[in-house]
Amino acid sequence: METELKENERIEDLEYNGLKIIQNKSGFRFGIDAIILSDFAKNGVKNSRVLDLGTGTGIISILLAGKTNAEKIIGVEIQSEVCDMAKRSINLNNLQSRVEIINGDIKELDRFIEKNSIDVVVTNPPYQKFNTGLISENKAEMISRHEVLCSFEDICKSAKYVLKIKGEMYIIHRPERLVDVMYYLRKNELEAKEIRFVHSHLGDKPNMVLVKAVKGGNPFLRFKEPLIIYNEDSSYTDEILEIYGRK
Amino acid sequence: METELKENERIEDLEYNGLKIIQNKSGFRFGIDAIILSDFAKNGVKNSRVLDLGTGTGIISILLAGKTNAEKIIGVEIQSEVCDMAKRSINLNNLQSRVEIINGDIKELDRFIEKNSIDVVVTNPPYQKFNTGLISENKAEMISRHEVLCSFEDICKSAKYVLKIKGEMYIIHRPERLVDVMYYLRKNELEAKEIRFVHSHLGDKPNMVLVKAVKGGNPFLRFKEPLIIYNEDSSYTDEILEIYGRK
Repeated sequence: METELKENERIEDLEYNGLKIIQNKSGFRFGIDAIILSDFAKNGVKNSRVLDLGTGTGIISILLAGKTNAEKIIGVEIQSEVCDMAKRSINLNNLQSRVEIINGDIKELDRFIEKNSIDVVVTNPPYQKFNTGLISENKAEMISRHEVLCSFEDICKSAKYVLKIKGEMYIIHRPERLVDVMYYLRKNELEAKEIRFVHSHLGDKPNMVLVKAVKGGNPFLRFKEPLIIYNEDSSYTDEILEIYGRK
Repeated sequence: METELKENERIEDLEYNGLKIIQNKSGFRFGIDAIILSDFAKNGVKNSRVLDLGTGTGIISILLAGKTNAEKIIGVEIQSEVCDMAKRSINLNNLQSRVEIINGDIKELDRFIEKNSIDVVVTNPPYQKFNTGLISENKAEMISRHEVLCSFEDICKSAKYVLKIKGEMYIIHRPERLVDVMYYLRKNELEAKEIRFVHSHLGDKPNMVLVKAVKGGNPFLRFKEPLIIYNEDSSYTDEILEIYGRK
């Protein structure tokens, strides 16, 4: 089957089990964040029903389909054009039976996902508050990076609604937003249970933070070893090469 | 003036500006936590009115009196015997004009401290929840280590009450309690603004976490470089030697 590519689109090889993804040549591209989050979340997925909140071009849903035996993965994306790309990428990978992409609003999840029906939520949310940081010129990029259409609080409310009791939520976010992450998780009965900081180099301040939360979990936060991206000589560390499937 | 020492007490030299402290030979002793917290808090103290919540034997109040030009430091301690030791240590250091030790309950701070009157709160609180962890045999140690008489939430409520707007709060706590720290701070209008993890060795998981919060502060958490205690050869790092005043 030939894949329909629109003007300004190209197919990128994910270099993992033959997986591919359609990306816009000039728009918002998936980053290392999505790769790292998929890897962090994969151990929580066992024949699970997974929900990827704000799936964008579908990168996390595709990687989790390739890396786990998830029974069903649902990716929700509000931007119809981006959503259309994600759907074509699912077809490109022949994942239609296991991955469904829904064009919908995270704030209205109850319209299309049943309450307490999901085992694992993953989310790589917009990192920046509305009206802070550099404003992106590109509208799709703006929506992906800033909390224009959906805040972290909205995501937590929806996750609480769809997750089963003891269901898990895997998040990547910026360290400077850590109070928001902890606060809105707990406010929505999602308790942060594991945290892992991501650092460019050993001894640096963190650039990103990975958090695993459990619906109805008891308070006790376990720290994992820091995830270091680069060796001193600026080559990727062994762990990053492994996550990328190059080792 | 000769200092009255009770049986089972001894005077310990803090090796900093001639400061000394009375400690119980067998009871709860101050640890590196208090030293590190005093150092973390000292830059926030400028002719300030400081409140040390749960001062114990007075270690943080004494160190801050020695390291800063704090106008007034008030240490609050609920255990009368421990409080008595702290008072005698204040006398021993001739700090009566600047440091006052009050035998009182943090949960009833409004009885003896005026609302919105404090510039800086410091606290090295009990780390463990009530009914968790190893139970200490010694009662004083139990109260210092476990949230028997006062929870972190109680401390935050009281800090909110006494702090001026934009007043600062400096905390040391255990990493596994980080959600509680973030959550109860924000719930009480104290926003965590700076965080610093303390690690035994570079690359290890953290053992302790330092947090600076600001009453009415805007959400944005700044990470400081990790504080490393030991070099690879198990000697103290330069920063720790400097904090101990040995460099």
